[in-house]
Amino acid sequence: MASTSKPMRQQVEEYISDLQEKIVSAFEKLEPGSPSFKRDAWTRQQGGRGLSCVFAVPHPSTSEAAAAAQNTVLEKAGVNISIVHGTLPPAAVKQMRADHGSMASLEGSLPFFAAGISLVIHPRNPHAPTVHANYRYFEVTEPAAQGGEEATAASAQGKVVAWWFGGGSDLTPSYLYEEDARHFHATLRDACAPHGSAIYPTFKKWCDEYFFIPHRNEARGIGGIFFDDLCDEQHKRFGDLDAQRPRTPDAIFTLLRSLGDAFVPSYLPILERRMRMPSDEHARRWQLLRRGRYVEFNLVYDRGTRFGMLTPGARIESVLMSLPETARWEYMSDLGGDGEGSEEGKIIEVLRKPRDWV
Amino acid sequence: MASTSKPMRQQVEEYISDLQEKIVSAFEKLEPGSPSFKRDAWTRQQGGRGLSCVFAVPHPSTSEAAAAAQNTVLEKAGVNISIVHGTLPPAAVKQMRADHGSMASLEGSLPFFAAGISLVIHPRNPHAPTVHANYRYFEVTEPAAQGGEEATAASAQGKVVAWWFGGGSDLTPSYLYEEDARHFHATLRDACAPHGSAIYPTFKKWCDEYFFIPHRNEARGIGGIFFDDLCDEQHKRFGDLDAQRPRTPDAIFTLLRSLGDAFVPSYLPILERRMRMPSDEHARRWQLLRRGRYVEFNLVYDRGTRFGMLTPGARIESVLMSLPETARWEYMSDLGGDGEGSEEGKIIEVLRKPRDWV
Repeated sequence: MASTSKPMRQQVEEYISDLQEKIVSAFEKLEPGSPSFKRDAWTRQQGGRGLSCVFAVPHPSTSEAAAAAQNTVLEKAGVNISIVHGTLPPAAVKQMRADHGSMASLEGSLPFFAAGISLVIHPRNPHAPTVHANYRYFEVTEPAAQGGEEATAASAQGKVVAWWFGGGSDLTPSYLYEEDARHFHATLRDACAPHGSAIYPTFKKWCDEYFFIPHRNEARGIGGIFFDDLCDEQHKRFGDLDAQRPRTPDAIFTLLRSLGDAFVPSYLPILERRMRMPSDEHARRWQLLRRGRYVEFNLVYDRGTRFGMLTPGARIESVLMSLPETARWEYMSDLGGDGEGSEEGKIIEVLRKPRDWV
Repeated sequence: MASTSKPMRQQVEEYISDLQEKIVSAFEKLEPGSPSFKRDAWTRQQGGRGLSCVFAVPHPSTSEAAAAAQNTVLEKAGVNISIVHGTLPPAAVKQMRADHGSMASLEGSLPFFAAGISLVIHPRNPHAPTVHANYRYFEVTEPAAQGGEEATAASAQGKVVAWWFGGGSDLTPSYLYEEDARHFHATLRDACAPHGSAIYPTFKKWCDEYFFIPHRNEARGIGGIFFDDLCDEQHKRFGDLDAQRPRTPDAIFTLLRSLGDAFVPSYLPILERRMRMPSDEHARRWQLLRRGRYVEFNLVYDRGTRFGMLTPGARIESVLMSLPETARWEYMSDLGGDGEGSEEGKIIEVLRKPRDWV
């Protein structure tokens, strides 16, 4: 239980560090014989730090070793946290004012703090879905009394003028298993339920809208939840129900923890029942084509990925850890275009028309 | 030789159709036993047509067939032409005014015509480079006298108020062969030479700047040529030498044909000497990592690709035919980071510091 006497930035840092360790342990316990996640701590020159926990199979030098490598449950995975601070340029401050009334009177550069956990898991078996989750906290503070733009270390922290939480989790199967979709959504719905009846329906719809690939007219996957800019100011996503949702920092952080804690139970049971399913080259080819779509969404539309790529000095290896090990593109592929006529067509139908799963 | 009595749009259409057939034939003659390019004609509902010529190996159902499929020189290739017309929305007109003084007084929607050839060749052998070329012509006309926004067919063509040519060709090897880089650049330089001494140096520098991946701090490949917005108005890229370059439609079209005609001689000799080189899994892995970078450039930065993806109604299969069949991403890959210490490091050094090859 987080103590409310601590600053929120410290509570969030502690929570995401614990959560990262729990999630990585859960995957490592699933398959004790496979390589561990590689722990890669880094610091940011302009302020802050991170810890990337990444799974990949070392490149085998013999074909016997290659065959063994093909047997791990995970193919590529990353569970990253970052806790950074620095200075927002005036253009970024100006853009944020649109969503945060508390920033209305602020001009110029401002100190910021951002902490988050971000994960993407690409299992090897074509019947096991890819999953993504991300939970984050953002603060903008008044310029510290002395020291100018660079004095943004926690010790010199100014008054918080704006803060918000964001996050979400979504599932991307190559093949549709309705019980998996129902389990994933039901777990997230149950995690939302204690915090108000409007939370899950609002976040579910938001997720369907966000993880959409316009140039393919397809959703990225079967959805989940997504939210951003959640704070004590009015949020248009909730409409008439806005008063009933968590609004204080503590209440929203409690919701965020419910969702973060729900990650392992939302996904591990699905992975366990799919990770050893019989598969073949045809299914693998389809999985790699679907991974191509994942690459398209992340590089073309995902705000976090694009922000990371376009930010000088960002740690590009962490930003792009979400990409699959291998992806495939075929011109006018003959797979998936036949509606209910094939297993490939069935998932495409769902991606074209998002369903309510619970 | 194109007749100057024909409208330029017709001359360009004829030229790119001929060039497409010549290029496709050259690849088909290189390897008579392999599958032909698939010719795929399409029409655009809002006006225009195209012909995509695409190479891909059919998906084999036995591992014997799979082994044979691995033997084609090309892995995935597309040589496309499109000849389209329609209406530019006011926002696009406004943006174009910045580069074209002749459009200064124009407001609202305007008819446009665009014709181009675009090709990307991904050979299978890791020692054979990927190549790209694109040559295009664009026209903006006055609204036709009658019929409103939709009357943009050639028969109702209004006066041309702005026109320009653009294009380029660049080479993307996974392994550095200096003689290949020199041959590619020398062929393009020789094609530019009759049209003025400023052409090749200007287009070469432009290419190095355009095909750059900022988030990797790497060029996409070893360059070539790139140009855009070439017409009879002043072009800042040429600086003091602007008066010496081709300026009339006929003169620029003649330059464009020299460059288009240079494609086969610039690339085929390179492909022929690399396509059967001995290779191994290590080289293949490196090639697939480099293809990941190609995907990153095309999806994140390439203007043509992004324009195509973000344009409702664009033919997405043609827009994305540039993507390789397979691409790979590794977190913190151990390949290529060791400078001159490996063949992988050698090409990275060149991508970090573009060289003058001729």
